[in-house]
Amino acid sequence: MAEPLAPGSVVGILGGGQLGRMLSVAASRLGLRAHIYDPADAPPAGDVASSVSRGGWDDTAALSAFARAVDVVTYEFENVPADSLEAIEAATPVFPPREALAISQDRLAEKNFLTRLGLATAPYAAVTTRSDLELALSTIGAPAILKTRRLGYDGKGQAALASPEDAPAALETMAGAEAILEARIPFTRELSVIAARGRDGTTMAFEPGENVHEAGILRRTTVPAPISDATRREALEIAAAILVALDYVGVIGVELFETDAGLLVNEFAPRVHNSGHWTMDGGTPCQFEAHIRAIAGWPLPAPVRTADVTMENLIGHDVDRVPALAASPGVAVHLYGKAEVREGRKMGHVNRVRAR
Amino acid sequence: MAEPLAPGSVVGILGGGQLGRMLSVAASRLGLRAHIYDPADAPPAGDVASSVSRGGWDDTAALSAFARAVDVVTYEFENVPADSLEAIEAATPVFPPREALAISQDRLAEKNFLTRLGLATAPYAAVTTRSDLELALSTIGAPAILKTRRLGYDGKGQAALASPEDAPAALETMAGAEAILEARIPFTRELSVIAARGRDGTTMAFEPGENVHEAGILRRTTVPAPISDATRREALEIAAAILVALDYVGVIGVELFETDAGLLVNEFAPRVHNSGHWTMDGGTPCQFEAHIRAIAGWPLPAPVRTADVTMENLIGHDVDRVPALAASPGVAVHLYGKAEVREGRKMGHVNRVRAR
Repeated sequence: MAEPLAPGSVVGILGGGQLGRMLSVAASRLGLRAHIYDPADAPPAGDVASSVSRGGWDDTAALSAFARAVDVVTYEFENVPADSLEAIEAATPVFPPREALAISQDRLAEKNFLTRLGLATAPYAAVTTRSDLELALSTIGAPAILKTRRLGYDGKGQAALASPEDAPAALETMAGAEAILEARIPFTRELSVIAARGRDGTTMAFEPGENVHEAGILRRTTVPAPISDATRREALEIAAAILVALDYVGVIGVELFETDAGLLVNEFAPRVHNSGHWTMDGGTPCQFEAHIRAIAGWPLPAPVRTADVTMENLIGHDVDRVPALAASPGVAVHLYGKAEVREGRKMGHVNRVRAR
Repeated sequence: MAEPLAPGSVVGILGGGQLGRMLSVAASRLGLRAHIYDPADAPPAGDVASSVSRGGWDDTAALSAFARAVDVVTYEFENVPADSLEAIEAATPVFPPREALAISQDRLAEKNFLTRLGLATAPYAAVTTRSDLELALSTIGAPAILKTRRLGYDGKGQAALASPEDAPAALETMAGAEAILEARIPFTRELSVIAARGRDGTTMAFEPGENVHEAGILRRTTVPAPISDATRREALEIAAAILVALDYVGVIGVELFETDAGLLVNEFAPRVHNSGHWTMDGGTPCQFEAHIRAIAGWPLPAPVRTADVTMENLIGHDVDRVPALAASPGVAVHLYGKAEVREGRKMGHVNRVRAR
């Protein structure tokens, strides 16, 4: 096991959005400094970081200079080009490992990985052409959902098929990109498990949460989720199996569907996850600190949960409700420092806490 | 009541030590930016602040420029020269109010203020000369403690008198500074109340904590304190009375002694307080956010406590215990980013949390 990073060491974070911002704060709590790399002029994380480098995702010279200035590199979102990581890895270790990132960047590779691991997913098939899609629909059936294999998030790059007649329009949405057709399985609820694995192989997991999405964007996470002990145990085991199979280091977010036939894995994100924001007010450590601990070689004890929490995202003009929310006892407000309010933009979140 | 500061507004903080550091983080959570003013080259708060200005406490030009660059000013320690605040107040509102700072900077003024308010303190008397001290000892008796009126903290500028024979040595410790003799009253325990008052006059208070000092430095705070309901209520009422009498805005730390004859007020600090660090892992908001909310004109609802907490300071080489502490479930580690370990230096703290 690597020695833990010494106080004053620098954690490099690719991406300076809200996740980078909350990672920076967590790093500071452990006596570490955060150095942000982002293409934007004044990224949200810049307000709480020790340094900020501005550069594009394909600027290997800038990425190399950044890597040499820090002691470890991590990323806040899964669409960092895997190739860009090569320039960085030449100078500095990167966590989570590149293979996890590469798999999660490709919905087909991800589903294949999960299947090989013996984990259940919704039926799926690769789709590029019209005939691929027709064949896939004949086995998977409708309703189904067509998704681009790459670069989708928050419901973008997706088309729902209520019936086979929707196939042409759905395929057009893909604009020629490689895609995957997934069966739409009726589910009781969406769950997620935020889990972490350290550089020494220790794993830990937070209490599973129940997620509610609206228009493809996470709206609310409630912890604890109203699930049976057996389902809870199974959810935690799934997350641990994925961490181990990927030889993972850092926090992972695993999204699950609870169905009549058991748990299906929807997808995983190789980073801190929106559905783990409740941990900021739910006990110790939070997911951001767990991630920093993992990549910095710190110990990773089991989390201690002190509160039941409902996390609600503040999306677009939801921020207009902040004055009222801030006046309510037990409502922890977290704003991301984004100047411009845009529809669908995550501006912040609130955690409603109740002592357990 | 003033309008709440808009997102992106800048909170100016005089002093960039650990309190300024934790205030900066709290400001970021509310979508505000922190601008630190400090004489040091790389103050701990600089790692999580949006801007840092370096300047001396008597550099009125630098202080004025700082004031013009921010939307509100606060301070992290009570030894900011009250005169320096004048240059700042010309440009920008300063909270807590200058009168509170001035009173707290002078132990005699502070005791007189508390007495006028009808609050009990240990018997005390002003002392400058040998004959003052002899007169004071004749009424107050020994054991007693002689303290400089100004610029004392963490046990500095104090001399204990076990008997009247210690008078000459104690007076010599004062080096001619104006002093105050206080009776040493046997007490059951030391308590503190962290309370806050908003710009609209709303007050709130955190659960009283029991403090243990060693060598004049806070060692440990335990919440809840093992006190009766009546004592708890009285402690909260004392803090509220002080806030109202000072027309206060911000967080205050009020130190109390529980004695057989009831509660005595020891002193108050017009700022966030070491004995309030438990709030960072004890519920929402924490004391740092309460302070930022108050000075920024945000609502100040009653805090919701979700955990029982024991806070322990990491002083000097206590930080060598961090690896072991960090491996214990439920121990939240907070390091201040100070490069050099020095005896008596506060390097960080840990909060041990238990669900209530």
